[in-house]
Amino acid sequence: MTIRINTARLLESVAELARIGASEGGGVTRLTLSDEDKAARDLLTTWMTEAGLDVRIDDLGNMTGVRRGSTDAPPVILASHIDSVVKGGRYDGALGVLAALEVVRTLNDNGIETAKPLAVVNWTNEEGVRFEPALLCSGAVAGAFDVGYVNDRVDRDGKRFGDELDRIGYRGEIENRPGSASAYLELHIEQGPVLEADDLPVGIVGGIFGLAWSEVTITGKSDHAGPSPMHLRRDPLIAAAEIIQGVERIATMEDDIAVATVGRVAVEPNVINTIPGKVVFSVDFRHPDESVLDTQVSRLEALVEHVCSERKVEGKVDTFWRSRPTPFDPAIVAAIRDAVRVLGLGERDLWSGAAHDAKYMADIVPSGMIFVRSQGGLSHAEGEYSTPEDIEAGANVLLLAALQLSA
Amino acid sequence: MTIRINTARLLESVAELARIGASEGGGVTRLTLSDEDKAARDLLTTWMTEAGLDVRIDDLGNMTGVRRGSTDAPPVILASHIDSVVKGGRYDGALGVLAALEVVRTLNDNGIETAKPLAVVNWTNEEGVRFEPALLCSGAVAGAFDVGYVNDRVDRDGKRFGDELDRIGYRGEIENRPGSASAYLELHIEQGPVLEADDLPVGIVGGIFGLAWSEVTITGKSDHAGPSPMHLRRDPLIAAAEIIQGVERIATMEDDIAVATVGRVAVEPNVINTIPGKVVFSVDFRHPDESVLDTQVSRLEALVEHVCSERKVEGKVDTFWRSRPTPFDPAIVAAIRDAVRVLGLGERDLWSGAAHDAKYMADIVPSGMIFVRSQGGLSHAEGEYSTPEDIEAGANVLLLAALQLSA
Repeated sequence: MTIRINTARLLESVAELARIGASEGGGVTRLTLSDEDKAARDLLTTWMTEAGLDVRIDDLGNMTGVRRGSTDAPPVILASHIDSVVKGGRYDGALGVLAALEVVRTLNDNGIETAKPLAVVNWTNEEGVRFEPALLCSGAVAGAFDVGYVNDRVDRDGKRFGDELDRIGYRGEIENRPGSASAYLELHIEQGPVLEADDLPVGIVGGIFGLAWSEVTITGKSDHAGPSPMHLRRDPLIAAAEIIQGVERIATMEDDIAVATVGRVAVEPNVINTIPGKVVFSVDFRHPDESVLDTQVSRLEALVEHVCSERKVEGKVDTFWRSRPTPFDPAIVAAIRDAVRVLGLGERDLWSGAAHDAKYMADIVPSGMIFVRSQGGLSHAEGEYSTPEDIEAGANVLLLAALQLSA
Repeated sequence: MTIRINTARLLESVAELARIGASEGGGVTRLTLSDEDKAARDLLTTWMTEAGLDVRIDDLGNMTGVRRGSTDAPPVILASHIDSVVKGGRYDGALGVLAALEVVRTLNDNGIETAKPLAVVNWTNEEGVRFEPALLCSGAVAGAFDVGYVNDRVDRDGKRFGDELDRIGYRGEIENRPGSASAYLELHIEQGPVLEADDLPVGIVGGIFGLAWSEVTITGKSDHAGPSPMHLRRDPLIAAAEIIQGVERIATMEDDIAVATVGRVAVEPNVINTIPGKVVFSVDFRHPDESVLDTQVSRLEALVEHVCSERKVEGKVDTFWRSRPTPFDPAIVAAIRDAVRVLGLGERDLWSGAAHDAKYMADIVPSGMIFVRSQGGLSHAEGEYSTPEDIEAGANVLLLAALQLSA
């Protein structure tokens, strides 16, 4: 029997959800626990209920729609999120939740009962734009944050997460947390250019990169731009420039996978006719192998020491955050690969450079992810786009993998 | 006859003036046309009057104290400024005005009449911190700005220069402008490290560097730091880093005099986990030879083009301000040199990297400057310091040069 999702219905749902919080540029602004988030949750509740799901809300606002299986085994979770960044796209997160819903609708259409239950999950506050940090409520479910911490997160207007959750009426019971499961699947747009470069619709995600965040501070001597001869200067910006170029080399010398980014730079006093006195910049290293991250941080430290000693400035590296790599479960990755093969799509393994709720869930449930090609690698932008063909391919991979894992 | 200034009296005047607008860190905040500026002007008026000077205020608030000569020849001007930056030092500007006053006091003590009159001048708004641009009122006297433009300068609180000038009671007559003169001498702290590096108390200033200010804009493609492989990135910051290093080379490859500074950098969106999309930075080239500045700007343009084409980003150079070099008058420089030799001080010729009122005055009067060593090359800082010995040396050079030029 060949069973496939209903692409038109899925696209229609994507379009309808995108009306809530729609931004002028064709994207959405649907910040966590905002009125728009509430409206989107209400619509999702309606759709879940119409699809016969038993909707359960937990104490963090995470929504789970359960479809019974023929056994009482722990469910297979199909999850993502419907919150967005400011002027984000309509696919980031939403596509994963709606593809999961479409899997359920398709099973209903075909009268298929799985052995294990299926659970469609919408995570609260994946983005972390309104309430930091990101992945807040999957993190709490996985034990990374406690509920007091979550409730006390405060947005820029001083509003508490807990109060806002009560305000929109989405605080439920702790026993409804989607914690215990036999498998976790998350479909998400790639948010990167790899699949487009390889001309493939979907990617099989091997895991989520580990990450090391450092802050580099270079202190020299600020002076008037005019009266200081070059040989008497101690300019921290030229040292920083050399290190920034070196950061790129630290990634490229490793392999094709390592990425390193300097995203934030602060120059003091940042005045046109003044030699800077201090430069602070961030370094973001990501890699699937934790030992490589260790090596990269060591290389950064050595580079900073070398450049600063040559340039007679002071350098300091503060590696203030580390996140270990999260390899996905081989059985889950294999189920996704089987689905890709059955569908005759090209097989492309890749790791996720960005974090997803699957990162935390992988700590407690065998997990995996499916990536759908994003046009131009774009995301967190109104112009975010995936073609109907790619969405169809991705949702069918989710369907077949879910069927295999819940059999 | 050996005539020398009274160092103790000069230092006492410096200390007394520094009480007006004194800042906690030992410096001064005496912004143009503020209450502190008014109080300092009042004290200066008292001192000028006590020294027998005929005090004249012009329509821009410039103060001139005239000491008659035995002839009606145009005067020799000894000038600087008593306004300061926020938390500036007590020597920048003030030392030049008070050394000029001390020259007059010394001549009085010794009953010396010069052939040409001497004029002690305090320029309004040298610093340009409260009202942009700097050198506003010497510029107006030299014809660079008209009086309407000057009066309409507005500070950050929306207050007009003209209104503030009236408020403190220092608007006088246009015929009192210190325009026509036979020579112009300005003593100023070096604001740079050259004299300290050479262990010399004073410098003979050959002129003021020409200057070219450019804004370089590099546009690439912003992306998530995680999901973008290095080879698919178009990161404008790495291009900028390469160019910033190149800017230093453009200066050092030229000669020992050329200076180049990148003082201001703006990265967009400036977020730790996002590849920058745009980087804008300033380039400040200074040199005594205008053709060298032309070459440097051309080299910058070529460098930006080369680096951006290699890195597949867009680069733009906007050279939005040029100021031609101002060589000082050979006869004035010679008079300063003679004074340095008579005093047995080491001869050190240098150019000023920073602008001074002498820059504009050189357009209309034969001009020259004397630099006094600044400890650590520091200025525009509360810790600005010149030793009593260096101040004495500088003021005596001013005295002897003034005597020669007014003979």
